[in-house]
Parts: sequence; structure tokens; C-alpha cells
Amino acid sequence: MTTRCLMLSGGVGGAKLALGCARLLGDKELTIVANVGDDFWHLGLRICPDLDTLMYTLSGRVNTDSGWGRADEGWRFLECLAELGGPDWFRLGDRDLATHVLRSQRLRAGEPLSRITADFCRRLGTGQRLLPASDDPVATRVHGNGELLDFQDYFVRLRAKPAVSAIDYAGAENAQPAPGLLATLADRQLEAIVIAPSNPWLSIAPILAIPGIRQALRDSPAPVIAVSPIVAGRALKGPTAKIMAELGLEASATAIARYYRDLLDGFILDAADGSLAGELQAGGLPVRESNTIMNTLDDKRRLAAECLEFAAELRAGRR
Amino acid sequence: MTTRCLMLSGGVGGAKLALGCARLLGDKELTIVANVGDDFWHLGLRICPDLDTLMYTLSGRVNTDSGWGRADEGWRFLECLAELGGPDWFRLGDRDLATHVLRSQRLRAGEPLSRITADFCRRLGTGQRLLPASDDPVATRVHGNGELLDFQDYFVRLRAKPAVSAIDYAGAENAQPAPGLLATLADRQLEAIVIAPSNPWLSIAPILAIPGIRQALRDSPAPVIAVSPIVAGRALKGPTAKIMAELGLEASATAIARYYRDLLDGFILDAADGSLAGELQAGGLPVRESNTIMNTLDDKRRLAAECLEFAAELRAGRR
Repeated sequence: MTTRCLMLSGGVGGAKLALGCARLLGDKELTIVANVGDDFWHLGLRICPDLDTLMYTLSGRVNTDSGWGRADEGWRFLECLAELGGPDWFRLGDRDLATHVLRSQRLRAGEPLSRITADFCRRLGTGQRLLPASDDPVATRVHGNGELLDFQDYFVRLRAKPAVSAIDYAGAENAQPAPGLLATLADRQLEAIVIAPSNPWLSIAPILAIPGIRQALRDSPAPVIAVSPIVAGRALKGPTAKIMAELGLEASATAIARYYRDLLDGFILDAADGSLAGELQAGGLPVRESNTIMNTLDDKRRLAAECLEFAAELRAGRR
Repeated sequence: MTTRCLMLSGGVGGAKLALGCARLLGDKELTIVANVGDDFWHLGLRICPDLDTLMYTLSGRVNTDSGWGRADEGWRFLECLAELGGPDWFRLGDRDLATHVLRSQRLRAGEPLSRITADFCRRLGTGQRLLPASDDPVATRVHGNGELLDFQDYFVRLRAKPAVSAIDYAGAENAQPAPGLLATLADRQLEAIVIAPSNPWLSIAPILAIPGIRQALRDSPAPVIAVSPIVAGRALKGPTAKIMAELGLEASATAIARYYRDLLDGFILDAADGSLAGELQAGGLPVRESNTIMNTLDDKRRLAAECLEFAAELRAGRR
């Protein structure tokens, strides 16, 4: 069986849609490409927040209250770290730490991130293919308040408070797409490429910044569909709307569609933004309205089904 | 205030006597020199079992049931590590892990172990000076069953089962004594040097193998006293008696005294071995009988007091 759906994803929001998709497709039919721009070294450990949120979500181990981290998590490590004067601004749980410690050791031994991730997924019983966008480091950096901030410094330590004037993706220009990624995008069996409702600038752009990926999306036989992370002018989660305003963009589904315009074959926006559909469609972009808020597993499955159906319609329209 | 008592120590048994001594002396009057021969890299973490047992014991954080590790320890990390296929033969607790992660990061950044240890002790409120025998690596290795085994492989993974034919201390010849150690041994204020009832071959010999330490003990103005780790032919803890038999030695307090003979000014053996005292004393070694089994804090304090009193007598006898 080969991949029928490939999803580009950040953390929490993307993981919800990925889980919905995983419930509809056979294990081997879904490939999820995770943002690695948030990855960083901390305390000598390589931490890959989006990859781990996806892995924990797909394997049923995620903390469903927060949408990230592990269920039944403990905080003894962090408590003792603080006591010893270590940095506790990044909240590392006792269970989560096993992922970081083992991954870091294997990375230091020269193993590529994609292979480590595949092994972890297999051991956690996750059949879907979870790929880091690249085995090479790509570091999202935020220019804010006259400073160049590492992503986690900006996002966690400073709680996304600094105003963002620009964002770059250090290392992206020299990064290679993860093994198998370009081949999957070129595969004629591929039926849908879904850009998850993640932050376009912080979660999706670091993937698209890796040479070859953007062109492969354009060239893919499968239609590319994005789901808007903006509903009624607000982000469902995180600083997307705030960043858009700081970058001089209107926080709207329309602006999201325009940002992805050169890639998209279709766009899904929330029914609350139905009034915006006409203008986009008039501009030549097929649009579908949906309920994009995913609280329950049913919500996730339904939105995933609509992505796949929409892709099928777009493919049918091409014939 | 300067050091009045310097103790050479391994893990659990030495830590008990160190705690007794700490209850008798002012904080700055006690220096404990910890074996580093058991230290090893595991999962990218530098683990220093004896140093940590001493630090947890002196700071009141030790698991008093086992004598090592931390109280109120959790095992979520280890559970998840095993799930991911990581090695779980060395039991790393969630709290304990904070020590290893932070220490490893600081070591990688170039900080010496002695300074990291001093900082950890300060943060845990431990006033005594806890010194690793060296900032340089010294690795105890066991020759057994025709193989050369790393210490933790032998001791933990193989549960000290292989018969020992020889023991070496890799790196010792190039190691420097920890900063301040030789100066303390030469200090005329020093009143007692106590070799704790630790395993002579696995815990004390790696300290003595570091160039300069053995000679400094001999030259010190303070008397050197050892407490026998063998009582009535048996080790109170661990494989001491087993190793002695494998090395062709009788497992007795007498054999322990002979092993340290060139260093000792006095020897403390258990009252159960009182019959052995005469021969040692006839050979010119002052001996004191005591109850060397330390179950309660009172036991520890009493044995420590006897070490200090014995040293005082030996000093008085020299005048």
C-alpha cells in the first residue's frame, strides 16, 4: 500500500487533523510531514516539539487536555532541575524526557532523525509514516524588538510577546527533504496533499523553505488543499493572528489563502468565514466551507473526510 | 574554618559514615573525597553513582530504604525509555535524572566536575565539601570470564556475577587529584583521614590510583584510619567478600588491614572480629573494636565519633 494522503503539519492543530485522517485511512496510506523549525538543543537534549506532538497524538499517548506532551505525565525531573539551578522555563515532563534522551543519544551516534522517528513510531504502535521535514537542522528564528530570537526563546520563554518584524529559517537553504518525501509527492498514487491548520509562518513555512519541497508540491499529481487556521479573524490556538497583524497582514482566512496561493488547488475555510469564499472563488481558487474546529474525535474525522472528498472532487474536475 | 576530617568514600556504606561525621563537625570541617571509578556515560549522560549517593545522603534527599537514589523517586522516564527500546538495565529515576542531565550539559560546556558538584551541594544546602577524587576520568574495569568489563556492565548489568581475576583503573595514571585535595591532605589543621568501610578494590583503590594521593596520605600530618568493610568474614553490602575470594584473599578484616597496611595509622574492626585484633596490634597496627554496622543515625554518629577519637589518641601518642 502506498501513501494516499500526505499532510504538512505543525503541532497541536495539525496533529488533530492527522489523527482524524489516520482513523479514515489504512496505516500505510497516510504520511505526515512534521515541521522541524521548532526543534532545538536544550540541556544537551534535542527536542522536536511538533514531531513529538504528532507521535504522541497518533499513538494515543498525548495529553488530551493540552493537546501536547504525554498523558499521565510527571514533573519530578523538572522540580529537581529547578532545585539544582537548571533552566525550567521549558517544561520537560518525566515521560517526555525519555524521547529526548534516547533521540539525542542516537543523533549523537550519527543516526538520522527520520530513522529514529520511524523506530519510535513502530515501538509505540503507530503505523502511519511520520517524517520530519528534513534530517538536517532548520531553525525558525524571529526578528522581534530589534533582536534575533531563537524560536523557543520567543515562543516559550518570552511567551510570543515580542512583536515580530520578520521570520527566517536558518539552515533551510542547505537542508535536504527527508528521505522518501519527494518521491511520495511525485507518486501518481498520491490522492491528496493537505496543509494542516497550523501556523503558516511558524509551522508550514519552515517546511516549504527546504529546497525542492515547494516545487514538488506544485508538480505533484495530487491536489494541494489548505485548511485555514484563522476562523472569524482569530487563531484557534497560538499567535497566528498576532503575527499576521505584526507582519502587516489582515488576520483573515483570505490572507491565509493568499499566502499559500501559488501552491493551492483548494482551500477549506470555516463556515463562520463563508462570506469570504466568493472573492476567493472568483479569483479562481476552489473553496469549501466546513466546521474547522476540532474538539472531538468525530470533528477530526469529519474534517479529514472533507479534505479527502474535496481532493477527490478536484481530481475528478481535472479529468 | 578548615577541614578537620577528610574521608575517602565509595557509595552507600561510606555515605552513612560521612553523614555521621557531618552531624559531629561544623560544615566546613568535613571534606569527603568520592570515588569516581564507577562514573560512566550512559544515554549521553554522565552518571556519578558514588558522588550522587554522598550528595543525596548529606542533603537529606537519599532513599533511606536502599541507601542510594532519591526519596520519593518516580519511574515514568524509565518506563517510557523501555517502551521506546532504550536500555533500562541501569535504573535512572525521574528526580535523579535532573542531576545527570544538568551535570552532563555543564561538563560538555567544559566545567570541571568538582565545580559542578560544589554548586549542586550548595543548592541542595549541603555545607560539607564533597570532592570527586579527580576532575579527570578514571574508569574501574573488571577482568572477568576472560573479558574486560566496564564497571557498570559488571556491577549492575551482570550483577557482579563474573568471577574477577583483576581490576584496573583506566585513566588513573593521567588523572590529577581534584583541586584542593592535596593541599587539604598536607594541612596541619587536618586531624583525621578516614577510609570509609567501602569496597577497597572497587571504591577506594580508584582514588589511591591517582598519582600523588597515596603519597599525600602517607605524608599527611593527620593519622589515617580505615574502618573494615568486612565483618565476621562477610561484606555488609555488595561483592567485597566475593571479590576477595576471587582475588585469592581471605575475606577477613585482617586482609583488609593488610591491603591498606602502608597507609594506615589505625584500624577499626567490628567487635565480632575482636579475636583478630591481637595479631594486627602485634604487627604494629593500632586497632580499635567497634560496632561498625550503621543502621540508625545514632550508629553513624557513634562510629564517626570513634573514628575521630581514635585519631585524636593516635595524634596524642605521636607527641
